[in-house]
Amino acid sequence: MTTPFRFTLAATDGRARTGTITTPRGEIRTPAFMPVGTAATVKAMLPDSVRATGADILLGNTYHLMLRPTAERIARLGGLHRFMNWDRPILTDSGGFQVMSLAGLRKLTEEGVRFSSHVDGSKHMLTPERSMEIQRLLGSDIVMCFDECPALPADEATVAKSMRLSMRWAERSKAAFGDRPGHALFGIQQGGVTPELRAESAEALQRIGFDGYAVGGLAVGEGQEAMFGVLDYSPDMLPADKPRYLMGVGKPDDIVGAVERGIDMMDCVLPSRSGRTGQAWTRRGQVNIKNARHQDDPRPLDEGCTCPACRSYSRAYLHHVFKAGEIISSMLMTWHNLHYYQELMAGLRGAIAAGRLSAFVAEFHAMRAEGDIEPL
Amino acid sequence: MTTPFRFTLAATDGRARTGTITTPRGEIRTPAFMPVGTAATVKAMLPDSVRATGADILLGNTYHLMLRPTAERIARLGGLHRFMNWDRPILTDSGGFQVMSLAGLRKLTEEGVRFSSHVDGSKHMLTPERSMEIQRLLGSDIVMCFDECPALPADEATVAKSMRLSMRWAERSKAAFGDRPGHALFGIQQGGVTPELRAESAEALQRIGFDGYAVGGLAVGEGQEAMFGVLDYSPDMLPADKPRYLMGVGKPDDIVGAVERGIDMMDCVLPSRSGRTGQAWTRRGQVNIKNARHQDDPRPLDEGCTCPACRSYSRAYLHHVFKAGEIISSMLMTWHNLHYYQELMAGLRGAIAAGRLSAFVAEFHAMRAEGDIEPL
Repeated sequence: MTTPFRFTLAATDGRARTGTITTPRGEIRTPAFMPVGTAATVKAMLPDSVRATGADILLGNTYHLMLRPTAERIARLGGLHRFMNWDRPILTDSGGFQVMSLAGLRKLTEEGVRFSSHVDGSKHMLTPERSMEIQRLLGSDIVMCFDECPALPADEATVAKSMRLSMRWAERSKAAFGDRPGHALFGIQQGGVTPELRAESAEALQRIGFDGYAVGGLAVGEGQEAMFGVLDYSPDMLPADKPRYLMGVGKPDDIVGAVERGIDMMDCVLPSRSGRTGQAWTRRGQVNIKNARHQDDPRPLDEGCTCPACRSYSRAYLHHVFKAGEIISSMLMTWHNLHYYQELMAGLRGAIAAGRLSAFVAEFHAMRAEGDIEPL
Repeated sequence: MTTPFRFTLAATDGRARTGTITTPRGEIRTPAFMPVGTAATVKAMLPDSVRATGADILLGNTYHLMLRPTAERIARLGGLHRFMNWDRPILTDSGGFQVMSLAGLRKLTEEGVRFSSHVDGSKHMLTPERSMEIQRLLGSDIVMCFDECPALPADEATVAKSMRLSMRWAERSKAAFGDRPGHALFGIQQGGVTPELRAESAEALQRIGFDGYAVGGLAVGEGQEAMFGVLDYSPDMLPADKPRYLMGVGKPDDIVGAVERGIDMMDCVLPSRSGRTGQAWTRRGQVNIKNARHQDDPRPLDEGCTCPACRSYSRAYLHHVFKAGEIISSMLMTWHNLHYYQELMAGLRGAIAAGRLSAFVAEFHAMRAEGDIEPL
């Protein structure tokens, strides 16, 4: 018998929660951060190394994979897990967010979105039904509803109209997803920064019924204050016994604030993208390794970090390989950033379990306020 | 007491030899292939992974490192081994070969070579004395004499004049190197494709006396036939009880031919550079992973290979990540190529030890003649 998809809450601390999502491909400890593997790779990392940072689940992008190498090809090759050599859970987005950002190259109708590929200009159509088919072909463990997500700021009428379209698409997504034991379908709450619209969306989704619920539309440039404003009420509109996923977030302090407000899952390209551009995230904030002040510094990025970059390499080395354009720069910096993110999640989980989240958060902010270590 | 630098011959088969070079930083099994770590990194590889392929020693480039991050900086940071996190032996070239190729940007005199940096245009001078100083600052285990190496074809008078300059520089290199227990200085035989000049060079070097001898000037575009022509006699001009190093070679069949002719050490950027451009080296020859015939192929690059790329990834995946410009393409393809090269060296060593080198070489050529596996 297939292991069912199940969410078990272990402890709460204030509004924050810690628990476990059980899937046939393994457990996901929550709050969970999901590294992004856009094109069937977490950039500059081997899957074993991603796992070594503590990641329980990856995110894959429907939009990128449907265009190259195509979902049908991945299915013929045994699915995304085998293709990319990651046997643990994978969540795939619906493609909706990415096609919406193809300004000028896409046309939105009730049916779905028609768009041109950024790879070769070929024409494609994404609908709730096609998105479900692609995510099934990929073999995704957690499938996201196909939704529309307007860029903020937008007027309330636009947001309302878009949210209601997304709710109709959520219903079509659920119908197309069907019954797939061991696989989960998540609904996505929309409604911008308007509590009434968020409530309407949450109710519509619960009438349909999902295995988990995402808070959508909050990684589109609205800023941390507006995001936390929505998170002050929107997760509580969603069922407490299902995972709550904040899409596309974020910086470490965004993550901490979201977890404090009851979020269980997050994803973001930031740690890997920052790594490739020479930005490290540490307990003391950001370190720009490009800066010449590191060129003679024998110290690691973070003395307290146990990642391979910090265990074995100086800032001087990381500065050198970044300046020389060496691939090992992206490899080590990405590894460090993903490690830091996963350590942060482990810290948050432990603090919630121990009922000392507010002390943990206070220390998190205090260390960042100190800033990076003094130059030599 | 410091472990001395020592070469122990274990077996010979025809002119081919297998043995061990002992250094304070570990043993080097010969014939040895040295991956190139130009800018203090074997491109797209972590040092642990390089070691996992079977490499006993790396090569570092004096020219690149003296310019960036500079030898003085590396020395302040504890030397090249610590800087790049490789605790086994490192051989450094003298910088001579690379400054010579800076056509138009360098000026050669009896004293040495004045040149402009390709990084920032700054002016530098390399002499035998400065090359020895830089290699000492880097902490190199095997130091190469500073020599001149004319591009071939060149007329005999040019080659003779250049070789005699290199011999005077070899004497200055030896004097500047001094007495450094546990560290080795190698002389470099020059003389182009003229046996009399090769003999004169070999005699001059032996009068000075070195810990090992390189055959120089044979990776400068003269072709395999001319190279093997020189190797048919030149290694025998060098002392049998010292390691013989063929610089900058080569393709797998170059390596096999060189080992058959008595060469103990080689280095080349080819396996790593090819990896980054989508070329794999296998027992059946080259595979161009860019080719569309691989896009649906579930088979590994080489069914018989145990490297991580072959164990866990299909040609279809390797094709996809190459086309998508993903860093993991360089990582996996480089790993495969370095693994293949080291497996080839292990095979050669085993065959020589067992006295069955000619059978090994016959099989090597027979498998390559078969070509890559049939398309599906």
